[in-house]
Amino acid sequence: MAARGYGLPSEHESNLQRRESPGLTRVSQASVAFTPLQGMFGIITPSGLHFERHHSGVPDIDPEQHRLLVHGMVKRPLIFTMDALMRYPMRSRIHFMECSGNSQLMYGATPPALRAGELHGLVSCSEWTGVPLRLLLAEAGADPAASWLLAEGADAAAMSRSVPMAKAKDDALIALFQNGERLRPENGYPVRLFLPGYEGNMSVKWLRRIKVTMTPTMTKDETSRYTDLQADGKSLMFTYPMGVKSLITRPSPGLTMQGPGLYEVSGIAWSGSGTITGVEVSADGGQTWAEATLSTPVLSRTLTRFRIPWKWNGGPAIVKSRATDSMGEVQPTRDKLVAEHGTNVVFHYNAIQAWRIAGNGEVTNVYA
Amino acid sequence: MAARGYGLPSEHESNLQRRESPGLTRVSQASVAFTPLQGMFGIITPSGLHFERHHSGVPDIDPEQHRLLVHGMVKRPLIFTMDALMRYPMRSRIHFMECSGNSQLMYGATPPALRAGELHGLVSCSEWTGVPLRLLLAEAGADPAASWLLAEGADAAAMSRSVPMAKAKDDALIALFQNGERLRPENGYPVRLFLPGYEGNMSVKWLRRIKVTMTPTMTKDETSRYTDLQADGKSLMFTYPMGVKSLITRPSPGLTMQGPGLYEVSGIAWSGSGTITGVEVSADGGQTWAEATLSTPVLSRTLTRFRIPWKWNGGPAIVKSRATDSMGEVQPTRDKLVAEHGTNVVFHYNAIQAWRIAGNGEVTNVYA
Repeated sequence: MAARGYGLPSEHESNLQRRESPGLTRVSQASVAFTPLQGMFGIITPSGLHFERHHSGVPDIDPEQHRLLVHGMVKRPLIFTMDALMRYPMRSRIHFMECSGNSQLMYGATPPALRAGELHGLVSCSEWTGVPLRLLLAEAGADPAASWLLAEGADAAAMSRSVPMAKAKDDALIALFQNGERLRPENGYPVRLFLPGYEGNMSVKWLRRIKVTMTPTMTKDETSRYTDLQADGKSLMFTYPMGVKSLITRPSPGLTMQGPGLYEVSGIAWSGSGTITGVEVSADGGQTWAEATLSTPVLSRTLTRFRIPWKWNGGPAIVKSRATDSMGEVQPTRDKLVAEHGTNVVFHYNAIQAWRIAGNGEVTNVYA
Repeated sequence: MAARGYGLPSEHESNLQRRESPGLTRVSQASVAFTPLQGMFGIITPSGLHFERHHSGVPDIDPEQHRLLVHGMVKRPLIFTMDALMRYPMRSRIHFMECSGNSQLMYGATPPALRAGELHGLVSCSEWTGVPLRLLLAEAGADPAASWLLAEGADAAAMSRSVPMAKAKDDALIALFQNGERLRPENGYPVRLFLPGYEGNMSVKWLRRIKVTMTPTMTKDETSRYTDLQADGKSLMFTYPMGVKSLITRPSPGLTMQGPGLYEVSGIAWSGSGTITGVEVSADGGQTWAEATLSTPVLSRTLTRFRIPWKWNGGPAIVKSRATDSMGEVQPTRDKLVAEHGTNVVFHYNAIQAWRIAGNGEVTNVYA
């Protein structure tokens, strides 16, 4: 067999695919596709399985024609070709990206009979490489009084978000590479913003414009959506960092237990505010908890894999995981989350996930 | 556009491919394909661009039918299905893999006019996940007196190598996953041995048999090849860890400098014996050196990216990088390597790489 210039998975693994959920979007041009977390291991998501969420299709952009404009409250408005950006110093970071609408079906009154990836697979983790945004802002001579910027995409939706200047000058990247190669089309080729730990839509894809501003621009994408309607009828805006969260991926629905005996329970944990400092696991529905082992490397705003041995006696059981991050935040129960935020909201669901294991080994999603 | 179940790179990036070199193999069933290092950034290699080297084609293995036998000097010979292996505790590690024949064209009398990936691209880096081999050896009851094992592949070449028991009980993995998903066919699907830091062929792909032995088996693959013929006519055998090595990927041949000014010089470094502790860079052919910055995370037996700013004055220049590892080993000059090992050998080339930059910005491979 001749070597393939660009390899693909085995045909025996053709069931490991992103799963699209057209019903979750209001227009057919929009799309949501979930990473199949239940079939994966480690922390890196291969780019072909990175989740997708776009508001009006994936533009086909010629990198030779694409430009990035930096303007607004700057001394020197600048226009960058992609070749010009490639001259700048690059930084690489392994970071998760999570859609703020991830896990939203879990706000529903009954637990959806879906697999882990179909429930929670709007989170993925890659090595992102790009130019620190602060370098471009410094070159443009951004006004020190400016507290915000507008980031705008070149897609049909002109996806636009306001970004606090403090984040822009901290760890924001103008990302060009994902897992060693250039960005995938669905992830913003040829260039995207990347804001570690922030809700995914802030990391504007197909980035064409950054405008330095005094105040938030109040774009359609931060007023008509990506605001979090609370139980009391008020809405939260600018809810940036994704909360501390974890879930058990093995076992999980579809991965039936093969009889009593020793298992390794394994899953992923992450926090948009820092590193994961601990994950506890319960096999009795939350009555008792044991500390899981965190697999190295444990990095800031990156998926962290946890694991713990468990001897299953073959009887019914409910397994859960509960993560804590370096800010001291603890993953909430679903009851607590719903009491605080209500169920009108579709964003920022980060509650503890419970899986019920039946005597026959079948695993199902439950509220428990 | 509907979401794709398994995504691919942009069509605008179709030039970033593995490059096959059929001339490097003696039979048409064998194949070598190089990772295009000059077009990549970060440390992770996407699995579609992981280098390939196989001795007699890529077998199409049905995971349901495949078995792994552990036998020889054991109390209980064991046969594992892939499903059975999936029950065991998993460990994930980010590690490079390098073919012992990587960079062999650099032993030639004249420097080949090739790009970085075509010269040195038989090295890649992935997150590997699998079962620690020591667990399977313990379950089989391996004889404490046994010092070796034989690992055998299910390919047409029945690729076979002897592995020291100390390595098998240290960090050897029975690898099932690569970058989050199951192994690619070219990388041993459904199961391979993975020996961190050792020459690639030791990490036997399509693994079907492990035999615990008292002595090395002296297989065809370690007698007729993968021995290193030295200048004095003697051969080295069992040359396992890959030496400390680095190269500059930007600039490199094909990536022409775009006029005088500030650049970031960037490259990769690695060692089969531990972590990279430093990389020095010279822009004057090796007369003076400056310490590059190592990008985090810096992990054992993993690619480490280095970077250093350089103001190019537009004149001719020769750039080089020199890595040091945690064992105190320093990457040798080509003269020193050739003096010690001669040029009959095709393996374990790890000398300092020099790129000449011409006044017009063109970059070429030189011995300097």
